[in-house]
Amino acid sequence: MLKNFRKTKIFVLTMLAAAPIISLASESSHPDSTSVGLVFLWIAIILLIAKASSFIERFGQPPVLGEILIGVLLGNLSLLGFHWFEPLRGNEIILFLSEFGVVILLFQIGLESNLAQMKKVGLRALLVAIVGVIVPFVLGTFVIGPWLIPGLVFNAYLFLGATLTATSVGITARVFKDLGKLKTNEAQIVLGAAVIDDVLGLIILAVVTAIVTQGSVSPTGISLITLKAFAFLAGAIYIGTKIAPWLGKMFSKIHTGTGMKFTLALSFGLIVAYLAEKIGLAPIVGAFAAGLILDSVHFKYFKQSPLVENLQIVADRAEGTIKQEMTDLAKKHSEKHIEELIEPLGFLVVPIFFVMTGFSVRLEVLFDLPVLMIALAVSVAAFIGKIVAGSVAGKVNKWIVGVGMIPRGEVGLIFAMIGKNLGVVDDRLFSIIVIMVILSTLLTPPILTLLIKKQDSK
Amino acid sequence: MLKNFRKTKIFVLTMLAAAPIISLASESSHPDSTSVGLVFLWIAIILLIAKASSFIERFGQPPVLGEILIGVLLGNLSLLGFHWFEPLRGNEIILFLSEFGVVILLFQIGLESNLAQMKKVGLRALLVAIVGVIVPFVLGTFVIGPWLIPGLVFNAYLFLGATLTATSVGITARVFKDLGKLKTNEAQIVLGAAVIDDVLGLIILAVVTAIVTQGSVSPTGISLITLKAFAFLAGAIYIGTKIAPWLGKMFSKIHTGTGMKFTLALSFGLIVAYLAEKIGLAPIVGAFAAGLILDSVHFKYFKQSPLVENLQIVADRAEGTIKQEMTDLAKKHSEKHIEELIEPLGFLVVPIFFVMTGFSVRLEVLFDLPVLMIALAVSVAAFIGKIVAGSVAGKVNKWIVGVGMIPRGEVGLIFAMIGKNLGVVDDRLFSIIVIMVILSTLLTPPILTLLIKKQDSK
Repeated sequence: MLKNFRKTKIFVLTMLAAAPIISLASESSHPDSTSVGLVFLWIAIILLIAKASSFIERFGQPPVLGEILIGVLLGNLSLLGFHWFEPLRGNEIILFLSEFGVVILLFQIGLESNLAQMKKVGLRALLVAIVGVIVPFVLGTFVIGPWLIPGLVFNAYLFLGATLTATSVGITARVFKDLGKLKTNEAQIVLGAAVIDDVLGLIILAVVTAIVTQGSVSPTGISLITLKAFAFLAGAIYIGTKIAPWLGKMFSKIHTGTGMKFTLALSFGLIVAYLAEKIGLAPIVGAFAAGLILDSVHFKYFKQSPLVENLQIVADRAEGTIKQEMTDLAKKHSEKHIEELIEPLGFLVVPIFFVMTGFSVRLEVLFDLPVLMIALAVSVAAFIGKIVAGSVAGKVNKWIVGVGMIPRGEVGLIFAMIGKNLGVVDDRLFSIIVIMVILSTLLTPPILTLLIKKQDSK
Repeated sequence: MLKNFRKTKIFVLTMLAAAPIISLASESSHPDSTSVGLVFLWIAIILLIAKASSFIERFGQPPVLGEILIGVLLGNLSLLGFHWFEPLRGNEIILFLSEFGVVILLFQIGLESNLAQMKKVGLRALLVAIVGVIVPFVLGTFVIGPWLIPGLVFNAYLFLGATLTATSVGITARVFKDLGKLKTNEAQIVLGAAVIDDVLGLIILAVVTAIVTQGSVSPTGISLITLKAFAFLAGAIYIGTKIAPWLGKMFSKIHTGTGMKFTLALSFGLIVAYLAEKIGLAPIVGAFAAGLILDSVHFKYFKQSPLVENLQIVADRAEGTIKQEMTDLAKKHSEKHIEELIEPLGFLVVPIFFVMTGFSVRLEVLFDLPVLMIALAVSVAAFIGKIVAGSVAGKVNKWIVGVGMIPRGEVGLIFAMIGKNLGVVDDRLFSIIVIMVILSTLLTPPILTLLIKKQDSK
């Protein structure tokens, strides 16, 4: 405990030491807010603070929670009269890096996931996704909405219901990754279900928007969107698996170095992310699919990292068990080379995403007590909806799957924002949705960590 | 030769295959030009094309030349009626990534350079820098300017002279890096001189601007700028060397993982780059200084890469020469861990800088024959000025140093732009300066490569 106290003290000291440099940044942001140097400074501050917040691990919490909480703190310092970080709010480059961050995260998670195992849990994931969409939707539209927030038009309840369906996979995936549990069946089901949820969410959003704007929706329209979305996913995985080896072979003829390997892998991920967005899905779905498709075997024509190459040379001259161990080591790392190459990029952009996610949380909304009470009840419905979905996950820890599906994150906010722009969601309902998203985002990491640790100790 | 022809054919085929996806990007850029997915697509296209252009290595040219040339090609496709890439021109995020690219490059080069060796060549570098500023300045202001472009006001010649003094270190540094020659005395002198040149250039720019706007300049003003710039560089290196070990120790108490190591190193580089910009220097000067300061010893409290850690475990159980070789291998790579962590980030952003550098070259300026002729003569003066500077480099290959100082790059363009905004530099003189910058940028890589290879073969 004393040790933890010391870590906390160092953290606080770091923050205090950062203050002058931060105020410097804030000051100079006025005369020339587009200065490149200033963006560099912001990036450095975000990264250092995010990393410093990883002291939360000492208290058994995943680093991602620290990053989100520090973001919440920075984003709400203006409530205390400190406006240092406000220039970050509209900074296009930081926002881009943040988006880039979640795309890279899902790409990494795709790379670490296994297409074969994904297929194995595919049916369960589909079931979890469908239940996890239907239950919250029905709860929101027909039960919680009319009951707790009476007097709104039906379309408003429709949007509330739609908002409750979304699953934001980034947070859950980071918790699994932080705890080294990405390869478990639970994690694979949640990842699969979240991707399918994104497709289902897209359909629901299109349908709800059509009902609000046109008063009705044609079955042909629904079928078309559904078909397009599923065809994209299936097509990307099918075609991708076919052309990836060919691409690897072709580009290896130009250059076989590490740079080419990195470029090829990253570009593949970015192009599939773009195509996903083009079709109307979230870019992260494309990035995840791209990661799933790519395999170390597609890069067999490329050089290994210099260390692995040198290791193999030494191993060739060694003998007995040492030779075997060295060969195994080289093999293991050559299989993970792509992941190791993408990792530093993740160190740069992923924390920016989580800090900025926390940053966008406005604690003001918590100050209106009646709204807060309703929001708590809506949040309970949001939690229940996904936990029910977890119950159909088959022979795994159903609680882990259910809780893993809880975070609504930016997807829910996008739904609410569209509803607001259509004039259906009023300010009060919007605040309620925002609080629900906040709670689902902040509570999932500690609860999930607890559940996973409890299972491990069995 | 047949092999080279094949590589070229693959490159051309890649370009053809890229055409549909490029036209897709261009098409969709109209309705929603701020789409994140589209920026992902642009990044992927730039990276793939840049890497594909590395087939130029087969013809003995450094990859950086391929990246610049492909940028020139893309940037001037609109002359042939293809406007696919035009949306890139104003894209803030791509421009930021490009700036980030040159900062990361100079940071990497600083990391690979050695402070001790830099100090050894420091005096020589200072001499080269001073001669390399005075000779082109005098040539431009008093000889070439009045002689070839008569009838302009004296201030215009003053700006031409100032433009000729700037050294753009990015291109030369990449050539040295591409050829694995960063540690040579020639490379270290050029790097040192280029950094000093940036300081001298800053002073000249301030003086010239003061003369143009106020008609005169006070000696106190000059002294102040000079003092500030040199104090920054000396201060950054002195203070940085003192606090880097302390920072490493402090942050290692929060976390000792690779992520923390990466974050600490990168943030240090970005903060010093910001401070350099703040003081009026180029951010790349700060990034280079930060790289020079950082040393693997500052990270001794952090974990090594998992492979190195595993390697050490196996090495502990091995015997004889194999044990020694494994230990050496682990040691060598643990010393290069920071560089290896920054490298993938470089793979992402550095090519964007060079492609966009080429992209900004407007070939239209070459179409005006009288202007072109004058520009050629000015370029010759620009080349001579720096080659003279190389002649004072001491006991090294003077030609390599001189040619290494030739590229004017973006620094020269910034000078010309300021002159244009002040109303001193007219369109014709601006075109002349742009052509000089183009020629110094495009001709340096092949000439430098030739000189280095010639020296190697001795």
